[in-house]
Amino acid sequence: MIGEQEQSSTDVREEVFVVVIVMVTGATDADVERVVKELEQRGYGAHVSKGVEKTIIGAIGIKDPAEKERIAAQLQSLPIVERVVPIMRPFKLVSREWQPETTVIDVGTCKIGSRQVCVMAGPCSVESREQIIETAKAVKAAGATVLRGGAFKPRTSPYDFQGLGEEALKYLKEATEVTGLPVITEVMDVRDVELVAEHAAIFQIGTRNMQNYNLLREVGRTRTPVFLKRGMSATIEEWLKAAEYIMSEGNHQVMLCERGIRTFETAYRNSLDLNAVPTVKKLTHLPILVDPSQGTGWRDMVLPMSLAAIAAGADGLEIEVHPHPERALSDAQQQITPAEFEKLMNALRPLVEAVGRTL
Amino acid sequence: MIGEQEQSSTDVREEVFVVVIVMVTGATDADVERVVKELEQRGYGAHVSKGVEKTIIGAIGIKDPAEKERIAAQLQSLPIVERVVPIMRPFKLVSREWQPETTVIDVGTCKIGSRQVCVMAGPCSVESREQIIETAKAVKAAGATVLRGGAFKPRTSPYDFQGLGEEALKYLKEATEVTGLPVITEVMDVRDVELVAEHAAIFQIGTRNMQNYNLLREVGRTRTPVFLKRGMSATIEEWLKAAEYIMSEGNHQVMLCERGIRTFETAYRNSLDLNAVPTVKKLTHLPILVDPSQGTGWRDMVLPMSLAAIAAGADGLEIEVHPHPERALSDAQQQITPAEFEKLMNALRPLVEAVGRTL
Amino acid sequence: MIGEQEQSSTDVREEVFVVVIVMVTGATDADVERVVKELEQRGYGAHVSKGVEKTIIGAIGIKDPAEKERIAAQLQSLPIVERVVPIMRPFKLVSREWQPETTVIDVGTCKIGSRQVCVMAGPCSVESREQIIETAKAVKAAGATVLRGGAFKPRTSPYDFQGLGEEALKYLKEATEVTGLPVITEVMDVRDVELVAEHAAIFQIGTRNMQNYNLLREVGRTRTPVFLKRGMSATIEEWLKAAEYIMSEGNHQVMLCERGIRTFETAYRNSLDLNAVPTVKKLTHLPILVDPSQGTGWRDMVLPMSLAAIAAGADGLEIEVHPHPERALSDAQQQITPAEFEKLMNALRPLVEAVGRTL
Amino acid sequence: MIGEQEQSSTDVREEVFVVVIVMVTGATDADVERVVKELEQRGYGAHVSKGVEKTIIGAIGIKDPAEKERIAAQLQSLPIVERVVPIMRPFKLVSREWQPETTVIDVGTCKIGSRQVCVMAGPCSVESREQIIETAKAVKAAGATVLRGGAFKPRTSPYDFQGLGEEALKYLKEATEVTGLPVITEVMDVRDVELVAEHAAIFQIGTRNMQNYNLLREVGRTRTPVFLKRGMSATIEEWLKAAEYIMSEGNHQVMLCERGIRTFETAYRNSLDLNAVPTVKKLTHLPILVDPSQGTGWRDMVLPMSLAAIAAGADGLEIEVHPHPERALSDAQQQITPAEFEKLMNALRPLVEAVGRTL
Repeated sequence: MIGEQEQSSTDVREEVFVVVIVMVTGATDADVERVVKELEQRGYGAHVSKGVEKTIIGAIGIKDPAEKERIAAQLQSLPIVERVVPIMRPFKLVSREWQPETTVIDVGTCKIGSRQVCVMAGPCSVESREQIIETAKAVKAAGATVLRGGAFKPRTSPYDFQGLGEEALKYLKEATEVTGLPVITEVMDVRDVELVAEHAAIFQIGTRNMQNYNLLREVGRTRTPVFLKRGMSATIEEWLKAAEYIMSEGNHQVMLCERGIRTFETAYRNSLDLNAVPTVKKLTHLPILVDPSQGTGWRDMVLPMSLAAIAAGADGLEIEVHPHPERALSDAQQQITPAEFEKLMNALRPLVEAVGRTL
Repeated sequence: MIGEQEQSSTDVREEVFVVVIVMVTGATDADVERVVKELEQRGYGAHVSKGVEKTIIGAIGIKDPAEKERIAAQLQSLPIVERVVPIMRPFKLVSREWQPETTVIDVGTCKIGSRQVCVMAGPCSVESREQIIETAKAVKAAGATVLRGGAFKPRTSPYDFQGLGEEALKYLKEATEVTGLPVITEVMDVRDVELVAEHAAIFQIGTRNMQNYNLLREVGRTRTPVFLKRGMSATIEEWLKAAEYIMSEGNHQVMLCERGIRTFETAYRNSLDLNAVPTVKKLTHLPILVDPSQGTGWRDMVLPMSLAAIAAGADGLEIEVHPHPERALSDAQQQITPAEFEKLMNALRPLVEAVGRTL
Repeated sequence: MIGEQEQSSTDVREEVFVVVIVMVTGATDADVERVVKELEQRGYGAHVSKGVEKTIIGAIGIKDPAEKERIAAQLQSLPIVERVVPIMRPFKLVSREWQPETTVIDVGTCKIGSRQVCVMAGPCSVESREQIIETAKAVKAAGATVLRGGAFKPRTSPYDFQGLGEEALKYLKEATEVTGLPVITEVMDVRDVELVAEHAAIFQIGTRNMQNYNLLREVGRTRTPVFLKRGMSATIEEWLKAAEYIMSEGNHQVMLCERGIRTFETAYRNSLDLNAVPTVKKLTHLPILVDPSQGTGWRDMVLPMSLAAIAAGADGLEIEVHPHPERALSDAQQQITPAEFEKLMNALRPLVEAVGRTL
Repeated sequence: MIGEQEQSSTDVREEVFVVVIVMVTGATDADVERVVKELEQRGYGAHVSKGVEKTIIGAIGIKDPAEKERIAAQLQSLPIVERVVPIMRPFKLVSREWQPETTVIDVGTCKIGSRQVCVMAGPCSVESREQIIETAKAVKAAGATVLRGGAFKPRTSPYDFQGLGEEALKYLKEATEVTGLPVITEVMDVRDVELVAEHAAIFQIGTRNMQNYNLLREVGRTRTPVFLKRGMSATIEEWLKAAEYIMSEGNHQVMLCERGIRTFETAYRNSLDLNAVPTVKKLTHLPILVDPSQGTGWRDMVLPMSLAAIAAGADGLEIEVHPHPERALSDAQQQITPAEFEKLMNALRPLVEAVGRTL
């Protein structure tokens, strides 16, 4: 597999994909012939399999994942076709078949994706120089190894606090100088990629931008690690395809972050989907972290869901910590205090050990 | 609170509930007067609060939770009312305000709801005498303390295996005699309640029957513990109201079981919602267990999600174990083998200890 | 097709179903052989198709829809199998392939499923003799052809109004005598089937009981038409399988009713899913109606969504009408007044004509 | 209202908002006093209302919608507060209270938002000069009044066809010159806004970019009409807030487009949510259109759902038409042929008339 990876790294389109076409009940030989011709005109072989009721056609030799999905859609538009089933998963560089061993990303003292559990903590938004430096010191003391803080904030309403922007980036850099903690912060505009890269160790792509493909491409052209949050209603497949966008531009330093999905339940602001953890670990070699703050939206759920995330196999956590949540300019209801964060870290230690990992 | 419970146990309708009515922008004094009169005619006081743009009316003295919701709906039907917000939670006997200490239910050697984590295991369906007795011995050896096994199966299609019925109940009773493990099994018909009670230690109410209110009432009239699975698209509030149905008939031995909800994600067959665990523990005194087999639908997710469930605070697990999953008559893809179950129990032990509990 | 129906009506298990098994990448010849043997041991033929990367096995000769799904699940539990795709739809009697022409159900002056659009109207709950008779007269005058009214009410909370029960059934019968309108009313307990059949022309199975299979079986043993509401989170496939339960017991007088599904959106109480209308019409020969009252939960959405339902191709409507919604004992916020119902019928007439149907 | 709009158009933050704070059961006078002080420190009045069980505090004088939500979140973080209910809707310029009459947007011969129903049609992607000009002629002949065609395509996979980009824009401009049809096309990058504005009459913001706030701001700074598609899992409230972003920058030419939401149902590729139509019309003065092609994902649902959309009150349709769907480079399964489009327009005519509108 690795050998294959080396050979074909310049062309990700060499794999052979398979599409299975199920004809409608009552399809005639002429109908079958029509589909076979449609395949042959596109340069593929057809393998016809007649059952008593149904005829099934396997397409062989499709070399390009884009073509596989396009042909599936095209053939689906024929009334003589009941169903087209694409067989292969539609991503490549991100898949564990492509690279069996888990990717490990070095950031500061963290080896994300290794046995070490990485805890990133800090306020939702950088609100002032004092606030971010005070928080950075507190979370470092409690055991965090990366500092989070929002400079550019994608807020649902235009009248909400939008972040301090470039000013916040400077405060974050100063916090790194004071504490040694590398910084993760969100980039939400293609025009800010260069600027953010100068101040931060990790790009965060937020849930609302998971499918902002031009932004994914831009961070894919850098060599700064990318922390890709799951879209709040993205399937695992769409999420991995978004990671594939970044990797297909050459940046292989991608980590994933589950941050809650949208369901019918209103008792929590988001439904943290820990099922994603073992599923992602099976499908991809990229590290997977969990954000229980946004993921639930309520501060008193952060501790139990942090423990659960690590027990499920997550490689790390991203937690919102604010010195004074009752005065926070954004997401006040889900930020915990430094004292609560310390308590969380204390609860985490025996659990991390019980699952054979380190902090 | 407990004193109050004793005084009012014969009448659950004495509480005072509050509804807040927000008038539409531009509502006149006459409009406000109309709503006040509607309240007074129903025997309640009204507390009018005029803001610059909006007038808000608080209804005082509503004694009956049914009336609170009914009045909210009635007033909502008036065009001069913008929104009616019921303030109190709509359940009573199940709420932690009503009974602060967690209910502990004794079944065999389990004290469900205590520090002890209870593991229930066994096949999805009882398929033969040999199969259930073999499985009972295996799960007991690995550390399970309750035996599960389906006799009556609510299957999506009428042509699926529907369970062995009364015959299965006899095999289950025999398995109890052989192993000492008490049995949990599903009841799905009001006419079977008595029969099942003779053979099982715990009634399971399945996800499809969570809102089969007449069935809830019937098991509420017994004194057999009830294991109430969450409806696959039930909110926490609806689930607790379903538990209230059982308790309102006098049976207070109710435990809850999260078993996966329906979301947009198709990578798993159900989305196990561990957010429910801390949420339920906050709202109610009833024990909460987790079923990671149905909850995910895939056997390789059972182990990590079992660990995550206990880390999140669950009081126990219900796990599907089958000696030969590749030959199982139902839900083959989510059942694990006795060997896998033993591995799971071994992984569980250090974790249970790390969170301060016992097995 | 019809001939085939006659021949095989005593055994619905004679069809040939197909399952496609996709092996994992790297599966060996021995792995393929193992799956072929598993199929042969169960009595089926195997058709192996080797691609460059993937081997696919088609199973031939599966005669029983139950077995098809069971075998899919069993083989899925093998680690050498990546994916199992069942090809045939899992229902039979309900499918349009089985019976191409739409079923027409005669109730009073309605021919449900014909060009005629059938409008059923009346209160959510029967609250008194006067209320139901007054409403029956009003909805008849406006053009309704069936009277709805709840006697047994499945309410989310045990403290809500539960319906007048048998007393309500008598009032409904009296309303039929006065107005000539046949009655539709919900049955929610297997023990009430006989009683309800004596008073009503149509059994309504409510959304919470769509998967109460024993109840479906009981109404399937009668010859009274059944109005099967979609479960609030049921897929189309589950809904049709529920209809198959009724039909498999011999009662072919089944009509379906879309009544709103559960989504993330909270602006409406339910999300009426009109996509179900053309989809159901394609898959099944059973008539499909729409309930815009429950389906949205807000009275001011009833008129536009009624028009939309008929434009989408629905065979009828079920609408909640109450003489005094602001005093209704259940679902006050979604019931419309007789005057509003008359307005709705007036808006409906030109639209019904525009789509080539009659009222 | 309009007068007020003129007065305050430079500052949208003058409104008075109300937040209702419900204290936990058992809150003391000191607790209530603490919340009152928190409000007063932020410059607002407090209106305390004591019930028998619950104390409720109304906050008066909050002038800024951002502050209202922020304060709600901040107070929610206090353990003595059970629930904070923001009363006012969180948008302003888009609301029908702000501007009672529906906005009418002139594009070519269309007056979008008037009695006239506007039909936009064309291929998902512009694939060649011939394809777009052939399609433009065909849809014009059938009655379309705006031409759609994608130049920049946000595709889920990086290996999918990404659109012809600037080349496509030139072909679209040529199609306008040939047919007179104004063009709608998607803009997905802030850097392309100027370029697209030179070639198109309407900016389309796609579902994946509904919350790409910097892009919304950029199109908000132009005076080109904007067609804002609903995010596939966006609530109505989030969608209107996204429209508010555009309007708050000065561009009031915004129309909304429902295009299907994500639900648990897999029978359709998206669930077209027609409930949005009457709901949006009630809340906002902006026109609302419907895209039944993306909204369902299947070509045979396009006709019935188009009719249903207009019956529900939509101001127009956007329909994907391709001369050869079985060869389309994107979304082949949902594109209809020119002949099918003509049939759709013929079915639409009597229906449009029946609901009192024109084509």
